[in-house]
Amino acid sequence: MPLESRHLLGLHGMPKADIQLILDTATSFREVLERPIKKVPPLQGKTIANMFFENSTRTRFSFELAERRLSADVLGFQASGSSVSKGETLKDTARNIEAMKVDMVVMRHSAAGAPHYLSQVIDANVINAGDGAHEHPTQALLDMYTIREKFGRLEGLHVCIVGDISHSRVARSNIYGLRTMGAKVSVCGPATLMPRDVERLGVDVHHHIDDVIPNIDVLNVLRIQMERDAGRLFPSLREYHNYYGITKQRLEQARSSITIMHPGPINRDVEISADVADSEHSVILQQVLNGVAIRMAVLYLLATRN
Amino acid sequence: MPLESRHLLGLHGMPKADIQLILDTATSFREVLERPIKKVPPLQGKTIANMFFENSTRTRFSFELAERRLSADVLGFQASGSSVSKGETLKDTARNIEAMKVDMVVMRHSAAGAPHYLSQVIDANVINAGDGAHEHPTQALLDMYTIREKFGRLEGLHVCIVGDISHSRVARSNIYGLRTMGAKVSVCGPATLMPRDVERLGVDVHHHIDDVIPNIDVLNVLRIQMERDAGRLFPSLREYHNYYGITKQRLEQARSSITIMHPGPINRDVEISADVADSEHSVILQQVLNGVAIRMAVLYLLATRN
Amino acid sequence: MPLESRHLLGLHGMPKADIQLILDTATSFREVLERPIKKVPPLQGKTIANMFFENSTRTRFSFELAERRLSADVLGFQASGSSVSKGETLKDTARNIEAMKVDMVVMRHSAAGAPHYLSQVIDANVINAGDGAHEHPTQALLDMYTIREKFGRLEGLHVCIVGDISHSRVARSNIYGLRTMGAKVSVCGPATLMPRDVERLGVDVHHHIDDVIPNIDVLNVLRIQMERDAGRLFPSLREYHNYYGITKQRLEQARSSITIMHPGPINRDVEISADVADSEHSVILQQVLNGVAIRMAVLYLLATRN
Repeated sequence: MPLESRHLLGLHGMPKADIQLILDTATSFREVLERPIKKVPPLQGKTIANMFFENSTRTRFSFELAERRLSADVLGFQASGSSVSKGETLKDTARNIEAMKVDMVVMRHSAAGAPHYLSQVIDANVINAGDGAHEHPTQALLDMYTIREKFGRLEGLHVCIVGDISHSRVARSNIYGLRTMGAKVSVCGPATLMPRDVERLGVDVHHHIDDVIPNIDVLNVLRIQMERDAGRLFPSLREYHNYYGITKQRLEQARSSITIMHPGPINRDVEISADVADSEHSVILQQVLNGVAIRMAVLYLLATRN
Repeated sequence: MPLESRHLLGLHGMPKADIQLILDTATSFREVLERPIKKVPPLQGKTIANMFFENSTRTRFSFELAERRLSADVLGFQASGSSVSKGETLKDTARNIEAMKVDMVVMRHSAAGAPHYLSQVIDANVINAGDGAHEHPTQALLDMYTIREKFGRLEGLHVCIVGDISHSRVARSNIYGLRTMGAKVSVCGPATLMPRDVERLGVDVHHHIDDVIPNIDVLNVLRIQMERDAGRLFPSLREYHNYYGITKQRLEQARSSITIMHPGPINRDVEISADVADSEHSVILQQVLNGVAIRMAVLYLLATRN
Repeated sequence: MPLESRHLLGLHGMPKADIQLILDTATSFREVLERPIKKVPPLQGKTIANMFFENSTRTRFSFELAERRLSADVLGFQASGSSVSKGETLKDTARNIEAMKVDMVVMRHSAAGAPHYLSQVIDANVINAGDGAHEHPTQALLDMYTIREKFGRLEGLHVCIVGDISHSRVARSNIYGLRTMGAKVSVCGPATLMPRDVERLGVDVHHHIDDVIPNIDVLNVLRIQMERDAGRLFPSLREYHNYYGITKQRLEQARSSITIMHPGPINRDVEISADVADSEHSVILQQVLNGVAIRMAVLYLLATRN
């Protein structure tokens, strides 16, 4: 049974069976990544354009690795926000890419909805690699894969996402996906970093991290955008660390199986202390590895769906 | 019969048979681009260096696609104008590239004549991807291919190029190529945007676009460099649009078969109105597709000529 | 017999047998570079990350060519000094790269010791492509290869390195490697450009180039960092040229077999006159070609050692 959609734009509304299929397919590719030769042929002769309108090293790297390991041809396109303007130009850029007979487009854009718009004007499969504060579906899929790898299931687990929920596409995609898969999701952070009407996302809202820690299975710690947030959305990095930083001491009240995740790159000793990031609770590096497998699965399923 | 030259530096003086050979070869590659697997092996093991000393997204993209679809190895080299200085350094850069046994060099440079100079100091095949206001031969070849695809021939057609003729390498290469192939060429634009002695290029010169439109088969609309030209070479964008912008209304006086081209990227509602760009007269997206086929043909013919 | 180390971090302390093995292996790859198809399959399915934290066109290009000609998958990563900070972040970046199952990392970094540090925290093979003023081992290996190609041996030859010895990783790696191979090494330059305790490197130190020229086999001319050095470390470029510039006139006192090398890019008529750079004594372009062969050899030996 193929995926319902020709595109991966977000996890909002994605059927449970599709998420399941992606996670299961990623398991096969995860095994490929353990081989000496990590390359398989299914996308040979296909061309994928990576259109990153926002800077990104690790997500771009992860997609590019996934694409090459599937034997696709990869075209990079890194636009500074200034050189490409929005609206009509995005449409023309997209149509041009398509006219060159590109098979798939992976797009990151600062405007929420840009990949959705793209999918309406071109024929190629579109994969959202992060759009504004909207969605980042492959990140949430790799997070779910990593949780399932650790606990053997998603159903019935309690996941808490900590940090700037309001501006986080990672949070949003995780909430949609996890809830579809039957997990319970809480969010925790200062009131200034909560989206309006956050309860309507179907999550519990907390402002004190110590209240949540004893009751959860997974803590997904969001990155603080140091250059942007500090002093504007909360008083200081030190204060943020005091109230929300995940430390060894705080984890003393947690279950022994508590699992710490972070989408990276981490700010050691800001949102997470260095020793927690490197502890046996942390699956941060597994997330990175699983990210390649998830992206291989998504690319493979979309390419072979056609 | 192979191409006369080992390089593609410009269309000035290129024999009719060579243009014909490139256009005919592109037809085969155009067909490859319609296949599910768009990759063919003739340049396997060959290394192509794309040396873009001027920013370019779409031309670079188009060349890279063409190169990869011919199975070449591609090395990108994007130099800001500042980091590489001209003259002697270009020679040394070129010799270095050549010493690494690169087979072909695709070069864009702000200095007219740079690819020509390069072809004199290195052994690799050199392809001009645009040099100053001099030539942009692959653009003109794809324009001619697109016209031939539409009308079945070039001979006897009347093509008008509208805009800043003076600074346009696209105009120059089109004029040379089209005239060699037996087309009649006119140019149209404000006197400030006409090269001195423009008549010596063998073209009719017009300053009123409405005088030309009723009599032509093809209108090739040049891009206005908004950041550079407006207010310096003509009073304002609005005024330019009023006098030279191609609108639905203006096209009412045209033949029903009139074909609208643009080298892209287009400024909607400046040199061309949005509805004309998207109309059934427009072949702008075909140009983009044909560009890949033309570049495949040029690379193939030069590589196999050796 | 495989290489002693899993990494190539520097030539300091590298056994003579290892240098010999790399030079001999490069000879086979040098021959591959003369073939019409310059591609061989040994690194098929291997992924190499090129992490250049310092700008570099030619070294990056040379490594990338070597990698592709060995059929590896290549991932580029070009970080400006600002976007990635040092220390802990480098560790996290490295671990992320590794988590994605990259097989080899080629790293250039402004901090001496960065590749060494990297080799301690990740499993992938690490190749130093230049770290601060510390080492640039592949450059020294290609220099030695080029000398051996010219003279048939290294033992007993007298090599003089001219210029800013103090800040040169090229000088340091050459001194280590050449002395291991039994060559005599001198350095020459103004006292301000000599490292403290330079004699402890086992070299003769000269301040007058005319004293050295008559007695040497090879002159390795270092690049003057024009933007950085002039006026700070010596009075002016003209004065540097007068005292240390290698000119035809100065070479009149040299042996007829004297060989001129330069790691590039050259500043014509600063550290070397244009006619000397282009003379029959110069092997500067052979160095560039041999650089690809040396890098193929290093990558091959490290990859197949595992």
